[in-house]
Amino acid sequence: MIIVMSREATSEQIENVKDRLVKEGFNIHLSKGVVRTIIGAIGDKKRIPSLALEAMPGVERVVPILQPYKLASREFKDEPSIIKVRNVEIGGENIHVIAGPCAVESREQLLEAAHKVKEAGATLLRGGAFKPRTSPYTFQGLGEEGLKLLALAGEETGLPIVTEVMDIQSLPVVYEYTDVFQIGARNMQNFNLLKKVGETDKPVLLKRGPSATIEEWLLAAEYIMSSGNHQVILCERGIRTFEQFTRNTLDLSAVCAAKMLSHLPVVVDPSHGTGKWQLVPPMSRAAIAAGADGLLVEVHPNPSEALSDGPQSLTPENFSILMNELSRIAPVLGRKMAVAHE
Amino acid sequence: MIIVMSREATSEQIENVKDRLVKEGFNIHLSKGVVRTIIGAIGDKKRIPSLALEAMPGVERVVPILQPYKLASREFKDEPSIIKVRNVEIGGENIHVIAGPCAVESREQLLEAAHKVKEAGATLLRGGAFKPRTSPYTFQGLGEEGLKLLALAGEETGLPIVTEVMDIQSLPVVYEYTDVFQIGARNMQNFNLLKKVGETDKPVLLKRGPSATIEEWLLAAEYIMSSGNHQVILCERGIRTFEQFTRNTLDLSAVCAAKMLSHLPVVVDPSHGTGKWQLVPPMSRAAIAAGADGLLVEVHPNPSEALSDGPQSLTPENFSILMNELSRIAPVLGRKMAVAHE
Amino acid sequence: MIIVMSREATSEQIENVKDRLVKEGFNIHLSKGVVRTIIGAIGDKKRIPSLALEAMPGVERVVPILQPYKLASREFKDEPSIIKVRNVEIGGENIHVIAGPCAVESREQLLEAAHKVKEAGATLLRGGAFKPRTSPYTFQGLGEEGLKLLALAGEETGLPIVTEVMDIQSLPVVYEYTDVFQIGARNMQNFNLLKKVGETDKPVLLKRGPSATIEEWLLAAEYIMSSGNHQVILCERGIRTFEQFTRNTLDLSAVCAAKMLSHLPVVVDPSHGTGKWQLVPPMSRAAIAAGADGLLVEVHPNPSEALSDGPQSLTPENFSILMNELSRIAPVLGRKMAVAHE
Amino acid sequence: MIIVMSREATSEQIENVKDRLVKEGFNIHLSKGVVRTIIGAIGDKKRIPSLALEAMPGVERVVPILQPYKLASREFKDEPSIIKVRNVEIGGENIHVIAGPCAVESREQLLEAAHKVKEAGATLLRGGAFKPRTSPYTFQGLGEEGLKLLALAGEETGLPIVTEVMDIQSLPVVYEYTDVFQIGARNMQNFNLLKKVGETDKPVLLKRGPSATIEEWLLAAEYIMSSGNHQVILCERGIRTFEQFTRNTLDLSAVCAAKMLSHLPVVVDPSHGTGKWQLVPPMSRAAIAAGADGLLVEVHPNPSEALSDGPQSLTPENFSILMNELSRIAPVLGRKMAVAHE
Repeated sequence: MIIVMSREATSEQIENVKDRLVKEGFNIHLSKGVVRTIIGAIGDKKRIPSLALEAMPGVERVVPILQPYKLASREFKDEPSIIKVRNVEIGGENIHVIAGPCAVESREQLLEAAHKVKEAGATLLRGGAFKPRTSPYTFQGLGEEGLKLLALAGEETGLPIVTEVMDIQSLPVVYEYTDVFQIGARNMQNFNLLKKVGETDKPVLLKRGPSATIEEWLLAAEYIMSSGNHQVILCERGIRTFEQFTRNTLDLSAVCAAKMLSHLPVVVDPSHGTGKWQLVPPMSRAAIAAGADGLLVEVHPNPSEALSDGPQSLTPENFSILMNELSRIAPVLGRKMAVAHE
Repeated sequence: MIIVMSREATSEQIENVKDRLVKEGFNIHLSKGVVRTIIGAIGDKKRIPSLALEAMPGVERVVPILQPYKLASREFKDEPSIIKVRNVEIGGENIHVIAGPCAVESREQLLEAAHKVKEAGATLLRGGAFKPRTSPYTFQGLGEEGLKLLALAGEETGLPIVTEVMDIQSLPVVYEYTDVFQIGARNMQNFNLLKKVGETDKPVLLKRGPSATIEEWLLAAEYIMSSGNHQVILCERGIRTFEQFTRNTLDLSAVCAAKMLSHLPVVVDPSHGTGKWQLVPPMSRAAIAAGADGLLVEVHPNPSEALSDGPQSLTPENFSILMNELSRIAPVLGRKMAVAHE
Repeated sequence: MIIVMSREATSEQIENVKDRLVKEGFNIHLSKGVVRTIIGAIGDKKRIPSLALEAMPGVERVVPILQPYKLASREFKDEPSIIKVRNVEIGGENIHVIAGPCAVESREQLLEAAHKVKEAGATLLRGGAFKPRTSPYTFQGLGEEGLKLLALAGEETGLPIVTEVMDIQSLPVVYEYTDVFQIGARNMQNFNLLKKVGETDKPVLLKRGPSATIEEWLLAAEYIMSSGNHQVILCERGIRTFEQFTRNTLDLSAVCAAKMLSHLPVVVDPSHGTGKWQLVPPMSRAAIAAGADGLLVEVHPNPSEALSDGPQSLTPENFSILMNELSRIAPVLGRKMAVAHE
Repeated sequence: MIIVMSREATSEQIENVKDRLVKEGFNIHLSKGVVRTIIGAIGDKKRIPSLALEAMPGVERVVPILQPYKLASREFKDEPSIIKVRNVEIGGENIHVIAGPCAVESREQLLEAAHKVKEAGATLLRGGAFKPRTSPYTFQGLGEEGLKLLALAGEETGLPIVTEVMDIQSLPVVYEYTDVFQIGARNMQNFNLLKKVGETDKPVLLKRGPSATIEEWLLAAEYIMSSGNHQVILCERGIRTFEQFTRNTLDLSAVCAAKMLSHLPVVVDPSHGTGKWQLVPPMSRAAIAAGADGLLVEVHPNPSEALSDGPQSLTPENFSILMNELSRIAPVLGRKMAVAHE
């Protein structure tokens, strides 16, 4: 890291910073410019965040040089990680589409959605049993009943299940039914929850928080990985910006960036990312073209009756048109659409 | 609410929307403009979010008219709410300053900080025992040991305690020791946690999320209140913007806005709001001038040795200078600085 | 538009608003809810912005229903507009790539770049003669000398020229040499400049401002069109967000949105949009997949010697690899890459 | 500056970067960490922006150490600058309030506003003759006629005039009538305009752009100062964020930050900063408490008849109440409200 001393810094203050760094086991090198002194420090990057150097007299600012995450970085593991979910492999040549309704509403709704997305080519089934909702007065999900329906739909279709775990309390029950834990955007920095899913043996789909930098996103993955579970799938789902026409601003450059910085697979959620079903097909195509390893798409048999996120859900018909488009695009990008195993 | 039909909407589609609304118990009125038809609907606003009208064919957009929160609104309760914490009243004429270290680090550190902030005029003591940290490799707090030290410091100084509860699991133990539950910015939309603290009988200090709108912030308060606990104190702590000189952008207009829209008291955290101790005094003065009911200020006996947030912590000396300034400003604003009772 | 009266609004205040609207020629309809009164007003949308209704006593807020732009809207013109630049047509089946160096630096640099991008398949040549630079101490462009070099390169390669006009003063000289006026992101709301290019007979490439909403972007186009020049090409080049890994956040959903709301063609600038040459190819592919009508790509014979934006410039080799990829992607999207005419 | 080489950088690539820097006259020092090599370079900071080092093979990123502005910095001039406008001094002990209507609409409107704000204690008169408006269909200002009315009002009241100059073309005519050039937020990076006002002998009030960082704002001031005119007054007027309740998010910490980094005076525009007249008084108080040297406040004799920005304009009555509040606050902050000279 680089410590920039203020131009008024006394030589005593400079000494204090040097001593502090040496005490912490850093190798330092000093460079005196015309205007100010700069101290370079080389040592254990994990130690850096706990040093409050910026609070030392005479210090103007501290510039970190290395990325603060380790296990999630390309420096730790160069080749892309492939995450296995039952018979499915995410992060390889195959592109996987995880589809289903935003919320599990009923046996009929879920089974219809599950069979339709399976037919269209989805290889994993998504659906929410526990729903984080902005307003306390809206549908909060069916809870365990919803999980049971997901398991049933999984059996009937043979599709692995992806569903959200909202807190540590419900983790054991979600564990019973799901194949992949989804960590929602609002929980990306729910650190205790990250640690707990990090202690399980099931893959985790980690959504990027609406105002999380790519670095913070990878640090959230680091929480899971440093707890022992390296099966992390990153999911870009849009960030919050000043633009209001779309629900969020889907940041596809974050897909490329995350794959540059990390070995973890990255999927994209164009449904939450745009909030408008009309934008889901073009942004799905764009996500694949940008290099995403898969998609998370909301599909509802009857969006206008949906209890949650209807406006951003595709009908089964539109979903199957989209899947056809993707199957034409994938090959020219050197990828293939995954095929569900029976 | 207002439903704007697209210009291609067929009269059948318009009928469908009307029928749907009537079925849901709304009174509707139609108005046909030159370009498009608009449907006004009056009914139970709590029902609105669950209608996926935007997903109905022919609907261009839906414009909500009423605020989606109720208990937190001025319409529900016009006069300002006063939240009692032991012998302290937040939201009245008195301005309260909640001060202490970011994290409880040791008996010595906390007791020194507690006595110093008490002397300077703080009326509540803050300190973190469970710390949400961006990196898994940084100090995560002392846990229950930290809570015990807080309780001890509270006894010694007579100051009520404000400390963060990070999850439902640790809620019971935090309940044992604290006077006020702090909900951190990252947990503002941890809805199950909000419901749980809403089932307790202790006041809740609810920080605004870094990318939460004022409306979402009040909806988070609504989660707590609709669970039975109306003792909510709002806390503005800065939002995330493109500006990088400051850690966050402290949104003081949100203080005025929240007090316009809601009857709940609002305090400001200039430490996290700016991330730089040099900006804490001027922004503290500004917060009071904007109408805040109090402040949450980080004070550390030795910021450069702090295990967390040293750069934004005031020394006890600077804190007491700030308190003197505030005591001169409060009266000209028709407020008084609260005095700690023995 | 909808006027929402505050719940304390007196019937006299409601009458005043009604009278004001009627006086302005609006048809109004009143609807009294349990909580508040709402006034719907139908009339000339162009008149709306000049009414300061929100300043009238008793008015809580005003909700516009119609888009404030007209000529740029799909309602005004349903089929996509095709903008002709010499022998080139932008907005049709063909995808056009506008390529060249950020800044014109020298005869050699520009001619080499021009011939290389032509060979690789670019159909228009870009290059800056007048450069808006954040710092006054950086290269500000060659001015008219640069324009002459552009014209020369245009002649030699047969490629039409796209170059930025920074102000009204230099408009006449830029007009002499360019085929398309580029309006830079920082000038998107330089309204007098917009009016002036709107009085010319040359196409205008209008970049979206770094903090401009899609609506403001289309209103900027409306300034040009309402001055008489309907030849506007929209260009998404990234918006400013909290994310710092990329120079801007390239908002590809804005491409889809702009094409939904407007008949104007939309191109994408992945160079400024990401600020990193490594991200230019994947985001270029993504832009085309999202439905963009073309790209604006920075190519420099020797990026590390570039006087401006080297880090985001492709080498001719990487550019030609990208063009090959695009020529495979376009057909599966039902488009073709344009071919330069001799 | 610090150049961070990527971990795959070859020693040849490292040599190339070193040679390049030495050739440009920088003193360099190398430091080889376990993971990567870092090159520190000390030299003329003005040269740095034109080096495209990030485009050199093997370079991961470049970290600037010094601020890129010079004349505007505290390092260049330590004591606060005082800008003289006729008999008024901005930046000293006295707090100045610049008040008047958003747009000059008529002789009556302006003169009434001018006399009222003078009575209430404003020491400069503001008013727009050339209005940048988001929509081409809204009132664009009276132009020179408006300037004449401003001059008249200035004579009658003895108040110096502050009005916006929108482009180089109208600069000469604005020069004839105004005492201070206002550069609007949208023009903060209209660099040629900045250079031109930098060649005049009149003070410039430079508004911060809606998405400009504090550094970019100071670099815009640097454009004016490096052209010879050091009479720059900075004006914070709110930045664009995701929050929609307020028109912009007024960033008062930017006032403190700008005064830390620069010697230039800083005033605040709470009218545009909030967009709601109800928020203007509390945010005006807050601005002064944060250390602002003055305010820019919109006052209209009849806001609901205003042709521009009525919703954020104060009535003369509310303005004079605000001025009274400020006159009580200023002294406790060690400032005084300026008094207009006859």
